Formats: sequence, C-alpha cells, structure tokens
Amino acid sequence: MHIINKNIKSVISKNTLNISKEISGNKWATIIRDEIKQSVINRISHGGTQPTICCVLVGERPDSTIYVRNKENACKEVGINAIVHRLPLSVTQLEIIDLIQKFNKDDSIHAILVQLPLPNEINEKDVLSTISSFKDVDALGSPFHIGSLAMRGYVPDFVPCTAQGCIELLKREGIKISGLNAVVLGRSNIVGLPTALLLMQENATVTICHSQTVNLVSHLQSADIIIAAIGKPNFVQKDWVKPGVIIIDVGINRIDDTTRKSGYRLVGDVDFANIVDICGRITPVPGGVGPMTIAMLLQNTFKAAEKQQPVIKI
Amino acid sequence: MHIINKNIKSVISKNTLNISKEISGNKWATIIRDEIKQSVINRISHGGTQPTICCVLVGERPDSTIYVRNKENACKEVGINAIVHRLPLSVTQLEIIDLIQKFNKDDSIHAILVQLPLPNEINEKDVLSTISSFKDVDALGSPFHIGSLAMRGYVPDFVPCTAQGCIELLKREGIKISGLNAVVLGRSNIVGLPTALLLMQENATVTICHSQTVNLVSHLQSADIIIAAIGKPNFVQKDWVKPGVIIIDVGINRIDDTTRKSGYRLVGDVDFANIVDICGRITPVPGGVGPMTIAMLLQNTFKAAEKQQPVIKI
Repeated sequence: MHIINKNIKSVISKNTLNISKEISGNKWATIIRDEIKQSVINRISHGGTQPTICCVLVGERPDSTIYVRNKENACKEVGINAIVHRLPLSVTQLEIIDLIQKFNKDDSIHAILVQLPLPNEINEKDVLSTISSFKDVDALGSPFHIGSLAMRGYVPDFVPCTAQGCIELLKREGIKISGLNAVVLGRSNIVGLPTALLLMQENATVTICHSQTVNLVSHLQSADIIIAAIGKPNFVQKDWVKPGVIIIDVGINRIDDTTRKSGYRLVGDVDFANIVDICGRITPVPGGVGPMTIAMLLQNTFKAAEKQQPVIKI
Repeated sequence: MHIINKNIKSVISKNTLNISKEISGNKWATIIRDEIKQSVINRISHGGTQPTICCVLVGERPDSTIYVRNKENACKEVGINAIVHRLPLSVTQLEIIDLIQKFNKDDSIHAILVQLPLPNEINEKDVLSTISSFKDVDALGSPFHIGSLAMRGYVPDFVPCTAQGCIELLKREGIKISGLNAVVLGRSNIVGLPTALLLMQENATVTICHSQTVNLVSHLQSADIIIAAIGKPNFVQKDWVKPGVIIIDVGINRIDDTTRKSGYRLVGDVDFANIVDICGRITPVPGGVGPMTIAMLLQNTFKAAEKQQPVIKI
C-alpha cells in the first residue's frame, strides 16, 4: 500500500512538473490577442480606421482552407477586418499579380497575405514580390525585410510571423536570451533563418544546423535553446540534448494514429514525450508555436494600419 | 655536431611547413587581378566601355588616403577607370548626397564607393543608402543586398568585398566548406555577418560569436574554420583552437614595435606566431585578407559594368 501510494504521488508530481515545463502558446496567444483587441478598440475610439487584411487563397487545399479560416476568425475576434479572396485553381499568375497591385493601391487595405503554397505552375517569388513592402505582413516578399533584420542599425518593418512568435514566447516566459547558446535546426526563409537572426539580435550565440551539418548531436548537446524547424516528426531525441535545455518546437507533422477518429495526430520535430522529463521548458505540438504565428499576424496587421494611417491622439 | 644538424633540419622543415600553411592573399589577389585584367581587355576588344568606379574621399585621414590610393592603383593596373573625388572636411551631408545622385544618373560610371569612416557629423547610413543598388559595389547601402545573400532562392547583386574575399580564399585553396563547422568571430554588417551568410550558403554549419558570447573557447575548439573579425590584436590563442583548424584572420591591428622605423607593426586578431604550428592553414597579416578585399572590389566593379552595359558578343 505504501509503495502504491508512493507511485501515485510520483506520477502526480511528474505530471505537475511536466505541465509546468510546457510553454503554452495557447495561453500567450490569448493574452496577445486580448492586447491587440484593446489596441484596435483604442485606435477606433480615437477616430482611426479599422485595420484591414486581404488574404488571397488559391484553390481548395484542405490545409490551406483551414489555415485561412483560422486567420479570418482570429482577425474577427480582435476587431480586424479580414477580406478573403478565394481564387480558382485555374487562375493565372498575372491575374493574381493584378489583384495584389489593386490591393497595394487601395488605402483601405493595410495588409496583404498570400496563403502558401501556391499551385506549382505559379512562381511564388514573383507573386510575393508584388506585395508592397508596407503591406507585406508575412515579410516574405522582399529580401529587404530579412536584410533589415540581419543588419545592425536597421529595424525591419515586419518579421516573418512564426519566427517572431518563437522569440515572443521566449520573452513572455521571461527567458533571458542574451549569452545563451542557441541552435536553430533548419534554415528556411520563413522560419529558421529569421529566427536565427532574431536570436542574434537578442545577443544569443547562434548556430544554424541543416541537412549538411555533420555531428548534429554535438551541436544540440551544447545548446541552451533549441529551435526545431525541419518538419521531421519526433526527430530530436532525449539523449541528443542537455538537461535543462529550452525547446521551441516549430514542426507540425501528421503521423498515423489508429486510436484517433481522424486516423492521425500532430507531432512536432522533437520527441516531446521523452524529452519533457529532462528539458527545462518545451512548447507542445499542437498548442505551442502554432497559435503564436496567428497572433503575430494580427500584431503585424495592426502595426501596418498604425504605420499607414496613424491616429493623431490629442 | 649531429645534434646541431638535427636542430637546423628541424627548424628548416618547420619553417617550410609553416610557409606552406600560409594562405597567401597576395598570391591569390595577383591571380584574380590578372583574370580581371584579361576580362577588361576582352570587354573592350568586343566594343565594351571601360569599367569605371567613382571613389568619394572626405577629409585627409592618413589611413583612408592610403586605402583610396591603393584602390586607385589597383584599378589602373587592371584597366579599370578610377575617378577619386576628394572632398574637404567642411563638406555637408547634402553636398555628398547630391554628388552621389549625380553619379547614380551618370551612365559612364558603373560603380560608386564612399570611403569610410565619414566625419562624425555625417550620417553614414543616409549617405550609403543614396548609392544606386546597381552601383553599390561595397554592398553596404541597402539591406536588400544582405537580405538577398541570406535568403535561399535569391542571388545578391553584390556581396561586401572583405566577406567575399574570405570565401574566395577558402575556395581558391581547394577547401571543401560543405559540412565543416565554421565559427565567425564578430557580427559586423561589413565582415562578420556577410561572411557567416556566405559560409552558410556553402553548407557550412555556422556559429556566430560576439562580445556577449559565453564560453567562446569551447566554440572555437569545435571549429574546423575560424573567421576572426573583431579588431583585437593577437586575441585568439593557440590553446583555444583544435589542431588542423583553418583560420582566416580579417583583423588588421597596429601594435607598438620599437624595432620598426615606423614604431608599429600590423598584426591580426589571431596569435599567428604560436598558432601557426598547430593549425591546418592560416592567412598572414598583412598579406592575407587585405589584398583580397581590393581584388573583390575590382571584381564587383567589373561585374557592375557588365550588368549595366553588357557587351553583345557575336
């Protein structure tokens, strides 16, 4: 009896411990959305226009459709006007570009978002580069944003939302980034690269690992912070990291799960179930970085409106 | 006698060994200049215009005067037309900007270089950002160049000359960069940052260290390549690096030397005299990265002319 009791106690304390280790993106995203909601109310009450974003969705990919709907709902919730332009798969590149150019000129639209991926026959770079840099809330249209993020003495207008979301999580959790060794797994334009640059801006010592990295484990073992953004389910193993490491898991991977009605479940790039015991802090998947990406999109849209149509408060 | 002989032999072989370890910037810069000279001859023989660079020098700082004279001479040597505009210290920022705008519009000028540092009362960023990105051979005028260097899928028009010079040395020496651990010491816009991005482009695993880095030595000890660009004389010590490491020393520091007529000598950021014994390859100071910076400026100027006024070869 005594033994059973002890076991129960240990299970309870382990669970409590693990829950407290979790960096809840859901929690922080809710707080940030509330802040934005309040800012929008203030803006409008001072005579400002309603922040407005145009989302362009080409085709009917189920994942893209869900992402755009989530963004639309999140916008509505905080008082941002979201206009979704649904275009058929048959749309030409020129038609999309014409539409974006129309949005660029429209003063009532502060932000433009093109949901990726676009169909194969459309050149994403050409489409994204059409977006006015003042309205480019995803910050993917021009190397100018990433260059401004990289160079000292410059301040970027916008930072890619997921990268900003990772850093925002660390900051909101009170983690002092300066001087820490950060290892970024992945070097994509949209996540790995800008996250590495943001960490460098916060005075971390940053190592960027990728598919050509030799001795990945020795890099990971020296990390105080790991940002995993490679899209490989449960890739980072428990014995690859040092105890106490802070992990931000950007991966959202589907794996088969016959116990679920859907037949799958979402997991990150990190073997959460095993690593949670030894790490210092970790974001869950789902409920970690995901909700922060949308929160940062709302923040960038609000920022775009404030820059383009500032409210003069007396 | 036998012992003395052995010592002499060991000294000789050590010296020979150390000389062969040196990555000679002088040698490679001469080869590259010859290549550019040949390209200029070809261009002109096919009816092309002479590549032309305008150098703006404000004031009479002795170091800047020497640097500009060296650049001017190097240009002449390869057949590039170098026009030096010497401006008095009393020149205003507006006057410099007006001059650059005039050069921007002048089709006979392919490249514009403003020698730094500018006097304190002049905003360098404002001046440099005036340079047309097509003529910005130092690649410091706009975050667009660095952004294009950082992002996959983009190709920068120009890369800062010293950074390009470091990578060119590694490549010319036949060093396979892919998969190597590279540690970049320093994160300046002009050297550290672009060198790190170039190394990443070459598939190295890059760590960027700086003034806030904790455990610098452990980072250096894991490096296969070290790029030192912090401006601290003889800073990197022998026992901080692993045997066989490849070192590119960007530092050019003056230290007192009473044995010299000038009263000083130039040293790098790396304790060359001691490290040369254990490293794999190393650049000397002077004669390492320095001459490569000028060679890359010539290369960028030639490239600028070819882009702006391509020669149609039949």
